[in-house]
Amino acid sequence: MHTATQQIDNGVNVTALLGAREALSQAPQAARFTWRAHCDWVRGTHSQIVVEDFHGLGEAQQHRSRFTFEADHPEVFAAEDHGPTPVEYVLVGLAACLTAGVAAVAQHRGIQLRSVKATVEGDMDIQGILGMDPDVRNGFDDIRVTFEIDADASRSDIEALVAQSQKRSAVYDLLTNPTHVKVSVK
Amino acid sequence: MHTATQQIDNGVNVTALLGAREALSQAPQAARFTWRAHCDWVRGTHSQIVVEDFHGLGEAQQHRSRFTFEADHPEVFAAEDHGPTPVEYVLVGLAACLTAGVAAVAQHRGIQLRSVKATVEGDMDIQGILGMDPDVRNGFDDIRVTFEIDADASRSDIEALVAQSQKRSAVYDLLTNPTHVKVSVK
Repeated sequence: MHTATQQIDNGVNVTALLGAREALSQAPQAARFTWRAHCDWVRGTHSQIVVEDFHGLGEAQQHRSRFTFEADHPEVFAAEDHGPTPVEYVLVGLAACLTAGVAAVAQHRGIQLRSVKATVEGDMDIQGILGMDPDVRNGFDDIRVTFEIDADASRSDIEALVAQSQKRSAVYDLLTNPTHVKVSVK
Repeated sequence: MHTATQQIDNGVNVTALLGAREALSQAPQAARFTWRAHCDWVRGTHSQIVVEDFHGLGEAQQHRSRFTFEADHPEVFAAEDHGPTPVEYVLVGLAACLTAGVAAVAQHRGIQLRSVKATVEGDMDIQGILGMDPDVRNGFDDIRVTFEIDADASRSDIEALVAQSQKRSAVYDLLTNPTHVKVSVK
């Protein structure tokens, strides 16, 4: 078993993550992170957003590079479609979070992954955002995530991987539970 | 007043949006949209996500182009930082949603915007995602959005713009209220 586990390589450094957990248990204030996005309005519903800096392990941190994104509304909303809609960025985050979790849990459990694909869909009645019906919410009514996973494991082991990823997912938690959001003008 | 409103141009086609609202009131099933993201695991916590197709106005729709994103964890999480973290994508969506709303509401109210900047910050205790403490949630404890807006309007009118944007924002709603998310393996 030990030899088999040694050969598993999903590209996740589980040893480092377990070490981090041990180190943070001695210094829990270092576990407090702040993530940031900086947004500049361009025109209409088109904005440009930069992700670059964050705070964690007690100090200012930088990503290895500066990540820049465009967001907009599509042409069917009388806009110019310079980028995905804001709600599609949320689906990008959910897909990536659950997929990273599957890889990390698979590594920890000694399961070699060959491919992981996820399709994430969110249903929305746009009568909400258009202010047509106060009983229709602005966000998604329902979100579905469907995984297709090819791995050296049984179907039940694969289902257990996905369930554990969901249990530890930051974005799944953000969508299924309420978070306080304070909006202010400087 | 009429002349002044005519000169306002934030790039939002309010006439088309009001027309859409009128048309959808006659055909509410056309207001049902489904947004999608397709995710492919690359290696470790690195994934590639595509946003391209959606459903709305009763039929399949395509964005004007195919939008591709990389997501990863940073080097301080023993990963390779090929892209923002999943939770930063959620902040990108929130920033873009509230900013698009500010532009649309300003156009509707006849307020000329000169610049709109937003900084969005989310605080997270990573003891949650590391499974160190069952009382620590995986997602953000708290999110702060700070706008800096330069516009032909009083401070109270600018604050009212932001408040109205927040009221109609899909992503603000998604974060502050719970949504059902179903995760399955195909």
